[in-house]
Formats: sequence, C-alpha cells, structure tokens
Amino acid sequence: MITLTSDFGLVDPYVAEMKGVIITINPNAKIIDVTHGVEKFNIRMGAFMLASAASYFPRGTVHLAVVDPGVGSERRAILIQTKKGFFVGPDNGVLMLAAQNQSIEHVYELSNPEFMLPNVSNTFNGRDIFAPAAAYLDKGAKPCEFGAEVTDAITPEYANVKRKNGSLIGAVLHIDGFGNVITNITLTDLLQTKNVKVKLVNHMLQLTFAKTYAQAKPKEAVALVGSHGFLEIALNQGSAAEKFGVKVGDEVEVAAI
Amino acid sequence: MITLTSDFGLVDPYVAEMKGVIITINPNAKIIDVTHGVEKFNIRMGAFMLASAASYFPRGTVHLAVVDPGVGSERRAILIQTKKGFFVGPDNGVLMLAAQNQSIEHVYELSNPEFMLPNVSNTFNGRDIFAPAAAYLDKGAKPCEFGAEVTDAITPEYANVKRKNGSLIGAVLHIDGFGNVITNITLTDLLQTKNVKVKLVNHMLQLTFAKTYAQAKPKEAVALVGSHGFLEIALNQGSAAEKFGVKVGDEVEVAAI
Amino acid sequence: MITLTSDFGLVDPYVAEMKGVIITINPNAKIIDVTHGVEKFNIRMGAFMLASAASYFPRGTVHLAVVDPGVGSERRAILIQTKKGFFVGPDNGVLMLAAQNQSIEHVYELSNPEFMLPNVSNTFNGRDIFAPAAAYLDKGAKPCEFGAEVTDAITPEYANVKRKNGSLIGAVLHIDGFGNVITNITLTDLLQTKNVKVKLVNHMLQLTFAKTYAQAKPKEAVALVGSHGFLEIALNQGSAAEKFGVKVGDEVEVAAI
Repeated sequence: MITLTSDFGLVDPYVAEMKGVIITINPNAKIIDVTHGVEKFNIRMGAFMLASAASYFPRGTVHLAVVDPGVGSERRAILIQTKKGFFVGPDNGVLMLAAQNQSIEHVYELSNPEFMLPNVSNTFNGRDIFAPAAAYLDKGAKPCEFGAEVTDAITPEYANVKRKNGSLIGAVLHIDGFGNVITNITLTDLLQTKNVKVKLVNHMLQLTFAKTYAQAKPKEAVALVGSHGFLEIALNQGSAAEKFGVKVGDEVEVAAI
Repeated sequence: MITLTSDFGLVDPYVAEMKGVIITINPNAKIIDVTHGVEKFNIRMGAFMLASAASYFPRGTVHLAVVDPGVGSERRAILIQTKKGFFVGPDNGVLMLAAQNQSIEHVYELSNPEFMLPNVSNTFNGRDIFAPAAAYLDKGAKPCEFGAEVTDAITPEYANVKRKNGSLIGAVLHIDGFGNVITNITLTDLLQTKNVKVKLVNHMLQLTFAKTYAQAKPKEAVALVGSHGFLEIALNQGSAAEKFGVKVGDEVEVAAI
Repeated sequence: MITLTSDFGLVDPYVAEMKGVIITINPNAKIIDVTHGVEKFNIRMGAFMLASAASYFPRGTVHLAVVDPGVGSERRAILIQTKKGFFVGPDNGVLMLAAQNQSIEHVYELSNPEFMLPNVSNTFNGRDIFAPAAAYLDKGAKPCEFGAEVTDAITPEYANVKRKNGSLIGAVLHIDGFGNVITNITLTDLLQTKNVKVKLVNHMLQLTFAKTYAQAKPKEAVALVGSHGFLEIALNQGSAAEKFGVKVGDEVEVAAI
C-alpha cells in the first residue's frame, strides 16, 4: 500500500509518471492518492494533509510526499521508518508532522542508486528517486539498504502553541474546501467549557462549542473540534474563512469564557 | 467493487481518509471514484452523477455517496439493497435516483456500531460510518446485519416532468463540463420528430435533433438525447449554458414542431 | 494495465463510466489516470501529456486517450500496436506522438462490434468504443481482431523544428502547472553551450542553462532541459508563462551564444 501527496495538481502528467514508475518496479503495488492539490511549495499545507490522512491507513503503508521547492539543490532525500509504516520524500519537514504521530524509529538518506531510476533528472525527484524508493520499500526492501542513517532531519514547528495569561495562541494551519478554519490548537482542556472567546484577525468572536456543524443555524459561526482533533472555526453551510477574512498562518487566540 | 461520490473535492484529504478506512477493513477492495466534484451540498447534482455512472458498474458493486448538509443531525444513515447492488449514504435523497433505476429491494438503517469506526465524529460520517459500511458490505456482510429495515426513506422528485397543452415542462438537471445543458426530460415520443421548440430562460429556440455534436456547425445549438438518455441542449464546440445564460434548476419547456 | 487520458475533467462522471465499463468486461484490470485535465478539444496538449507519461509505464500497457472534437463524425476509431504496448482512441493525432516513440508496428480500425458496448451512442465513444477495446486488449484479445489494418492514420507535426541562420525555430508545446514553458525543441547540440539567446513572444532573453530550478535565484529565468527531454524556460519559484505572457503555440527561437 503506497499513498501519494504532492503539489503537482491533476492536470500535468507528473502524478501518472510516478505511478508508472511504481507499477513498473512493483506490479502488485496498490496506490491511493492523498491529494495532489497542495498549494505549490506550501510545505506546511502538505504536512498537514499527510498527517490528517496517514493515521487512517493500514500498518506497513508507505507514504510518499513531494512538496519540494528545493528539488535539485543540496537538500537530502529521506526515508523515515516509524512504528507503523514508512515515509519517503524530501528532508524539508513535509513528512515530519505525520511521521512523529507514528513514533519515528529511524531516518535514512535515499542515496543508494540501486533504488533510483537509471537517469535521475534534477527537476523531478518525485519520479526518479521517491517513486522507486516507495515501490522497492513496498516490495520488501529493508530501510537500511537505502543509505546512511540520518540523525538531524529537519523538523518543523507547526504545532507551536503558546500560553499567555490563560489564553492559547496558535495559528491557522489550514482552510478546508468548505471554508472551515482549522487551527493548530488541540486543546483538550478547553473542551471542558461550553463557550470560547476567539480572536481571529480583527474579529473578537464569542462562540459556543458545537458537536456538529448542523447544531448551528445556517450561516452561524461555531467552534468545534474537527475530525482531525484540531480546533476549528466553522460556519454552518457557509465559509468561515471568507466571512472573517482569514488566511493560513493568521494568529488565533483562544480562551475559555 | 466500491465507488465513491462526494462533494469533498480533491484538495482536502477527506477522500483519502475514506479510502484508508476501506482498505484497512477490506484490503482487497477495489475503489473507483465517480466524482468528488459535486457542488457543495447540492444533493440533486450528486444524485444525477451517481445515477449516470452507476449503471455502468458490475453486479454487486457498492456505491457510497456523501453529499450531506445534515451530517451530525437526526437524518438517518442508510443502506439500500437493489436487484443489482448496494448504495450507502445519508437518507436525504442522494442515493435514490440511482437506486430506483436498479429496483430497490430493501432499505436498512446503518445503526450497528460493529460496522462503524470506534470513534464516530459528528462531522465526518463519510469516513466513520459510510466507508466502514461499504467495506464490510463489499467483504460479504449481509445488509440486514447493519440495522433495522426502513420503509420511509426520503425520495426526491427530480424527474417531475409535466405535460401542458402538448408541451413538456421540466427543469435543467445538470450542466456538464462542456457547457451542455442536460434536462430531466426523457421524452421518447419527441424523438420521432426532427425539430423541437425549446423555451429556455428567456430564449425561444427552434432546434433540429442531432445524433452527434459534430452534425452541427461549430457554435450552433442543437437538441439531442445525450448518452444518459436525457434531452440535452448543446453547442458544437462551445458552451450552451454560457450562451443562453442557463443554470441548474431553470425551467425548460419543449414541444414538437 | 490501462491508462486513461482525456479532456473530460474530474467533475462529470464520464471517467467513472469508462472505468465501470472496463471493470465490467475485465474485472482484473488495473487502471491509472494520466490526466483528465487536457484543455477541451486540445489534441496537441493531450498528445504531449500522453507522450510524457507513456514511457514510464510497463511493457504491454494499453493507453486509452480521448480528446475528440470530431466524435460521432466520420473520423475513425483506431488501435495502434507498438513495440512496447497499445494505444486506443480517435484517429486525430492524439495517440501518435506517444505511439511513434514506441515504434509503431500496426494500426487497426476499431470496427468490430463484438468489442463495443451493445448500444454505441454518438456522443461518447470513450465509453462505448474505446473503453471496451482497452478492456478486451488488456484481457488478451489480438489487435487484428478489432478491424481492418489502417495505413493512413493521421500524424501530427508538433515536433516540427526548423533551422534558420544557426537558430532553431520551434513552438511552445505546453505550459505546465508551475508556469514552466515547455517547447518542442529537443536540441542535443545546444546542450553543449552554457548560455542561450531565446526569443519568446516580444522578449529577447539571455539565459544560462541550469541543471535545476534551484540553481536560479527566486523569480529568475533559466533555460533547462526538463524531465521530458524538451527545452524549458522556467522561473525558479514563479511562473515564466505569466511573466513573459506566453501561450501554447507561440513561436520560440533559440540560438547558442
């Protein structure tokens, strides 16, 4: 089982080229797309999407993710072995949010040319390095065969939530296709309260915690803990992001009332 | 064989999460996407797309469809057993157009927690209830094991075409990616004529029935019976919807000339 | 192994209908999408995408491509047998760029109704003729069973690059999702030089050849040979097409400095 995450989109044939390479090496591979709609070069968005999806896949799944503004530069290509499965991609943080959730055991550099296409282009490591690596891993190759162990893989700090005077200060991690504003706040303690005060861009909102979008009146804003475990600001049957003028990275301050 | 239809889009990882759940339960499942581009909360559009595609899939296929503005509310989750296969989704009509085409035998509520994820979120039944149900059904679970029989499932009336003074009055069911205007009119009797008079928004059109788009001159409007059996207004190599300012739900009046 | 390329998009259920037909005929078929995002009726773009992807698929793969403005007219439906695999689609050039790369052995018309759906519509040959043909071919049917041999299949001339006073004059073949401008120039001789003079629309550019996008400063233009073997004009972390106002078909003139 191999999953694919990228910022390649579905118009260009890049994703198909990766799949062709995988199937040529490993004809029995099952491949499922996580998404190819990550915003170009938006490593954080890719990391969030991979982290959201990875936990629903079976033990032993190989997750390949390519959001790779530094392709062809000195950045390393890596393989992460976790307690549950494997992650393959560039060493720029895109794999780490998901891999950390599964307890990282080893990280290896992808440097063994036996597990690459014969001609590695400088512009498309997804096809030439990551796809073959995923195919061979899924076929049974041992992680340590791919290259030297890495002890300083780049780790992002997306989950950096601060406490200040009883408030939690985090950031907008993602805006989903419904316009729901997903923060990086996983506040188990705030869940005890029924109402929260949320400062979002220039808006001061007093929100009731809902269990479902449908508990709110149409177009009414609610706070809820989304299916991924993060605090969301949502509008029943509408776009909270649009209504409040929110974009990814904006600061969010939350306090119990 | 499981098919998936939703309004989730392909940017967010929701579809992948459903697939991960299915593959974890039923590693041999084959999954094919019908579409995830249904307009948000547009149940009719989802129903039309599922109905269009379902008839081309083999006997025994499980069709999962999620267009679900009432997720988390009291609306039921259902499973429909037809003469040809199965349908899984919310009880809001999205399954019915397709299921009726295959002769409905039984409808069951999805209430047995054995066939759900351990933690059912209130916001994502697609992953937590429908995906497991489809996976278990495809694996051989019996429909009656999922819950009590339902006799009052919601049935939409999209195919409501009236006759008035020799005219047929229906509505625009769908506008496809080419801008073809697809109506809910399946008039076998009008097919005998060569020409039709069509009232569409503010336009009075006199159209010749074509067998193919290519029979018309470029940018010329024609009437034809599309591959799905419905009357279409099309423009050869152009968008009829754009030219005539048509949107889904607009009234269409047709008469033989 | 069957691949699919079309201009159907992913909103409408057309692609799913083709897949349903294939799976009904050949339950063991593996299907991979190349792309369904070809610009409507843009045969050249479809040909380029299929050619880019096809070489990464295993021997024996059946490639189905439908970009078909003439559907329902007199244009033939064909099957091309190459040294490596098979191509199925309309006889309008969309298959040829890819098929020629694999050395064409035979071309057959798809005229045997045994390998079509019982009711062939005039508007959707992709589902009614090409999908069944691909399914039966993948299942082992012999190419010569599908119809008479064709000796005059339509061959496009996309790769027509001229030499004039030491310059090469070609055209923009494609603009990818990153805004990279891909030309039809495969100039192995120019690769010896470090710098090139490129005339693109109204811009006269002096570009250094880079091996990777990352060798350029952000927003700086470079020339490189992309992963498909064609000369590209790219902007590191930006859109060259937007910056220089380039569209597909524009003339490109290149000379060594």
